[in-house]
Amino acid sequence: MSQTTLRNGRLRDGGPVDIEIADAVIREIRPAGSRPVTGPSEDLGGRLVLPPFVNGHAHLDKTFFGGDWQPHVPGGGIRERIEDEKARRAALVHTAEERAFALARTMVEFGTGTLRAHVDIDPDVGLAGLERMLRLRQAFAGHLDVQIVAFPQSGIVSAPGVADLLEEAMRLGADVVGGLDPGSIDGDLDGHLDAVFALAARHDAGIDIHLHEDGPAALAEYRAIADRVAAYGMRGSVALSHAYGLGRLGERDFGEIAGVLAEQRISIMTNGPTGPVPPVLALVRHGVNVFSGTDNIRDSWWPFGSGDPLDLARTVAHRNSLLTDPELDLALGLVTDRAAAALGLPDHGLRAGGPADLVVVGARGAAEAVADPPPARDVLRAGRWVSRRSLSTRSDLPRSSVETSAPSPQHI
Amino acid sequence: MSQTTLRNGRLRDGGPVDIEIADAVIREIRPAGSRPVTGPSEDLGGRLVLPPFVNGHAHLDKTFFGGDWQPHVPGGGIRERIEDEKARRAALVHTAEERAFALARTMVEFGTGTLRAHVDIDPDVGLAGLERMLRLRQAFAGHLDVQIVAFPQSGIVSAPGVADLLEEAMRLGADVVGGLDPGSIDGDLDGHLDAVFALAARHDAGIDIHLHEDGPAALAEYRAIADRVAAYGMRGSVALSHAYGLGRLGERDFGEIAGVLAEQRISIMTNGPTGPVPPVLALVRHGVNVFSGTDNIRDSWWPFGSGDPLDLARTVAHRNSLLTDPELDLALGLVTDRAAAALGLPDHGLRAGGPADLVVVGARGAAEAVADPPPARDVLRAGRWVSRRSLSTRSDLPRSSVETSAPSPQHI
Repeated sequence: MSQTTLRNGRLRDGGPVDIEIADAVIREIRPAGSRPVTGPSEDLGGRLVLPPFVNGHAHLDKTFFGGDWQPHVPGGGIRERIEDEKARRAALVHTAEERAFALARTMVEFGTGTLRAHVDIDPDVGLAGLERMLRLRQAFAGHLDVQIVAFPQSGIVSAPGVADLLEEAMRLGADVVGGLDPGSIDGDLDGHLDAVFALAARHDAGIDIHLHEDGPAALAEYRAIADRVAAYGMRGSVALSHAYGLGRLGERDFGEIAGVLAEQRISIMTNGPTGPVPPVLALVRHGVNVFSGTDNIRDSWWPFGSGDPLDLARTVAHRNSLLTDPELDLALGLVTDRAAAALGLPDHGLRAGGPADLVVVGARGAAEAVADPPPARDVLRAGRWVSRRSLSTRSDLPRSSVETSAPSPQHI
Repeated sequence: MSQTTLRNGRLRDGGPVDIEIADAVIREIRPAGSRPVTGPSEDLGGRLVLPPFVNGHAHLDKTFFGGDWQPHVPGGGIRERIEDEKARRAALVHTAEERAFALARTMVEFGTGTLRAHVDIDPDVGLAGLERMLRLRQAFAGHLDVQIVAFPQSGIVSAPGVADLLEEAMRLGADVVGGLDPGSIDGDLDGHLDAVFALAARHDAGIDIHLHEDGPAALAEYRAIADRVAAYGMRGSVALSHAYGLGRLGERDFGEIAGVLAEQRISIMTNGPTGPVPPVLALVRHGVNVFSGTDNIRDSWWPFGSGDPLDLARTVAHRNSLLTDPELDLALGLVTDRAAAALGLPDHGLRAGGPADLVVVGARGAAEAVADPPPARDVLRAGRWVSRRSLSTRSDLPRSSVETSAPSPQHI
């Protein structure tokens, strides 16, 4: 398909359009039927056309996806869960790459174009997970853009050698420096944050910190992080993931923290979990950028998940009572433009002159697509269809070199 | 397909089986490969085989499904929402039947075998909604069993003529007497409940009451209802829908109410909404039967919903942090055996000698089916496939005589 016109698609914010594509570029987006179409064309039948989804937070290195079903083992705190995870992953180590590939393929089939992947870097796994993710990124080039976060899942200050491993990870190609509950995982709020910010500054990289804390501990962390963003001149380059604590602050504390987050342009990632959630609408009204990611999918932390960004948008909308059309459109933004802003993707969006990357969704608008995400998608990357109509249509997406498993369970 | 064997299916609680079917009856369920298969057969490839789903609570008469997308209009309290709904439904009245038919067809395609449909009966709509639902039940006979609840959405004592309309509805073919927030909608706890219980007693029918209240008002309602169940000898015939208040009771009050519910065999219906939810695990541990229903789907109350019972089970599991395999299996029970118990369906389940009604799901077990519901299903009713593999495969399910609309949006 070096040249074609996709007729009668519907943009998120407007009426029906014809989209002219040539040589992997969108040549023109014009009102449907405003000019006769010459050459090959295809009727989208009024379907919604979106830019590729942005999945702002995932853990492909942890997933059991594509392999046997793994029952969830209930655990205690974060520490116990981390240990359980190590034991279970060790037992599955030969297929970690094929599981990550299987999940990445499914994500592309759902329309994902960019993924922020947190990769564990700890004394046990070392850089093995990172190396697998670098191979995955290379294999999926042209299909899926992968931003890799070097994620110190077992801490930095309290975990021998991790500071050096993180440094090496950034040198090898990780894009973003990760962090985790600075006050509790290392028991050293300043030590953890200083390590994270100094590393990011040395590599001119962004930061993405997992925060699960609540109450005064969370307040201290938000303030300490915001202070460092200002001191390091990193406005717009820092994201905080989960941030459950924002869902339980009193009005005065919430107002203070939201103001600081907005001022330092710190983005908040939410995946719509079971418990308290950062209040999406209230944050947006305070000028804070909020975005979403699928987080854990079928791993030792969480049995749920499909990898579908629209299903994620629905879950977050549901958890936040986003019901009106503008609210449902905001939920769609969490996996499109708002996630692109958080990840620093300036070229996201459909426009003439931009790459011919898009997703066709069987819905008549953004609100409908979020309220009842249709499973079937048509996904165009660089002017080529990489997935068509139905998830059961297999494509030529990359497979792991070690892959031997059956197709993923949706497709049996 | 008067005779066939479905080979290598997987039951919810066991290993692979061959299921022999003849003349719309399951002749035998035996370990896979335990006997040579003669005659026609089909390989299920290890897929999960379930009895038809039971959707324990739906409002087909309210849905906008199958028509144009209808933006959600935020409203105030229950009263305002009821008035908004009446206005919007009046504007759509010509297609109410086709919308209900479209949703019922989709439900069957997802594997639903039995549906409890609450139908509004109020001074404005009178019995028109009931009459439409009776026609739908007749049209879907053999595909979908419909239990009709005569639902006084605008109250009984305070709504002129509704008591008589309810009486007439039961005479015309409604199966269950509905009720709604007795203390607030009518402002007359005893008056509302007396009307409901007396009507049910006259028609030897079950009862299903919507309860949205919280705090002391809810406590008074649970106690008043349980007292009447005992007095009328209606143990096992009463369900309470939503019961949000159970999610906020203190431990002592919760223990008292759960004990009373268990003693009177009153079932609790939850659909996993945004706010407080009845705690599924705690109720089950107290011996209370809990079940689920899709509730509102794309109507003036709620924009979400697909009609898929497995997606419903996942939502309830997510809201209740049901994570382990036994917990996810419990979630599946909310739309299978537990819903069957609540609705009084003694013959639910797969067994030799039973009707050849079943659903094939592309998952390897109950936990996986709930954690990531595969959209594609194969649905067998009375030994005939009524839906195969993919939702986009249209079947010969009944259509409304007035239907003119395009296929439902998933299928455009």
